[in-house]
Amino acid sequence: MKKKNIVFIARSLDGYIAGKNGEIDWLHAIPNPDNIDMGYGELMEEIEAIVMGRTTFETVLSFGIDWPYAKPVFVLSTSIKEVPEVLIGKVTLLHGEPQQIIETIHKKGYGTLYIDGGSTVQNFLKEDLIDELRITTIPILLGGGFPLFGDLPTPLKFDHIASHVYLDQVVQNWYKRRR
Amino acid sequence: MKKKNIVFIARSLDGYIAGKNGEIDWLHAIPNPDNIDMGYGELMEEIEAIVMGRTTFETVLSFGIDWPYAKPVFVLSTSIKEVPEVLIGKVTLLHGEPQQIIETIHKKGYGTLYIDGGSTVQNFLKEDLIDELRITTIPILLGGGFPLFGDLPTPLKFDHIASHVYLDQVVQNWYKRRR
Repeated sequence: MKKKNIVFIARSLDGYIAGKNGEIDWLHAIPNPDNIDMGYGELMEEIEAIVMGRTTFETVLSFGIDWPYAKPVFVLSTSIKEVPEVLIGKVTLLHGEPQQIIETIHKKGYGTLYIDGGSTVQNFLKEDLIDELRITTIPILLGGGFPLFGDLPTPLKFDHIASHVYLDQVVQNWYKRRR
Repeated sequence: MKKKNIVFIARSLDGYIAGKNGEIDWLHAIPNPDNIDMGYGELMEEIEAIVMGRTTFETVLSFGIDWPYAKPVFVLSTSIKEVPEVLIGKVTLLHGEPQQIIETIHKKGYGTLYIDGGSTVQNFLKEDLIDELRITTIPILLGGGFPLFGDLPTPLKFDHIASHVYLDQVVQNWYKRRR
């Protein structure tokens, strides 16, 4: 089984994934008349399952839309005790150390994973469990908020593998962990 | 007189300009056999003067090399009382509020300025005095250090104007303040 953990996430030019009051409206401030997906569809084809933290899960639920994921979603939470009935079979709750979580998901047969959510990404990076970063940068300085990256016990080197500019404004860079 | 304040600076993928212990060796970790300057020469042609903080000034002095700037340098410091004799005529000491400093330099006839140094860039951004950001991103997560960007009283929108990839690894993006 091919194993790979991919982060696909947008941040402001100063590195925040949400503003001081949790605002994410700036993520969609660049006009996108043709609704291009900036690599999201390609990612969804490539991955076998999604791993996200509780905050991301609750944010998605708060949108009040149909469940948007066609792939199995693993939600990391100790506080959520059961999956909403409508999501049974689509969402699995897990908790534990990042390495344990990955092994559990691998045993279920899913090797290529999309790791999503600020705290989850930070916790996985702390254990050097991220193989690829696909980072979309929105040209705004928020001046505060929830940072994408956090403290690490040791620096991690990556190789740059691709750059895309979308909508003339949004830069996406792909990086692969140098191992 | 054309007036423009340009930041040209390198940061890690997680947004630091120096590591936890001030280390900057990672800035030069990507092999650069032909010594390409990644836009530095072009910047030096374009600007009329350089504005830097005390820390940057002292860092440059610590290199023990000949004074590397052909353009007038304004060093912002309240603690340095006089310019080293060898730099008289090349370096001018200034202190005060960013807006004041800019006006003083404009009055001397220099309109296009290179604003350098972490604290100086942050202080100028707080007053919305930066017109262009040329940010070079090195593909490493340092996991801590001195951040390029700091808190802002209000978000600042920029327009993306150019992207370059140097040495297959180093991404440089140019942004212009949307006013």
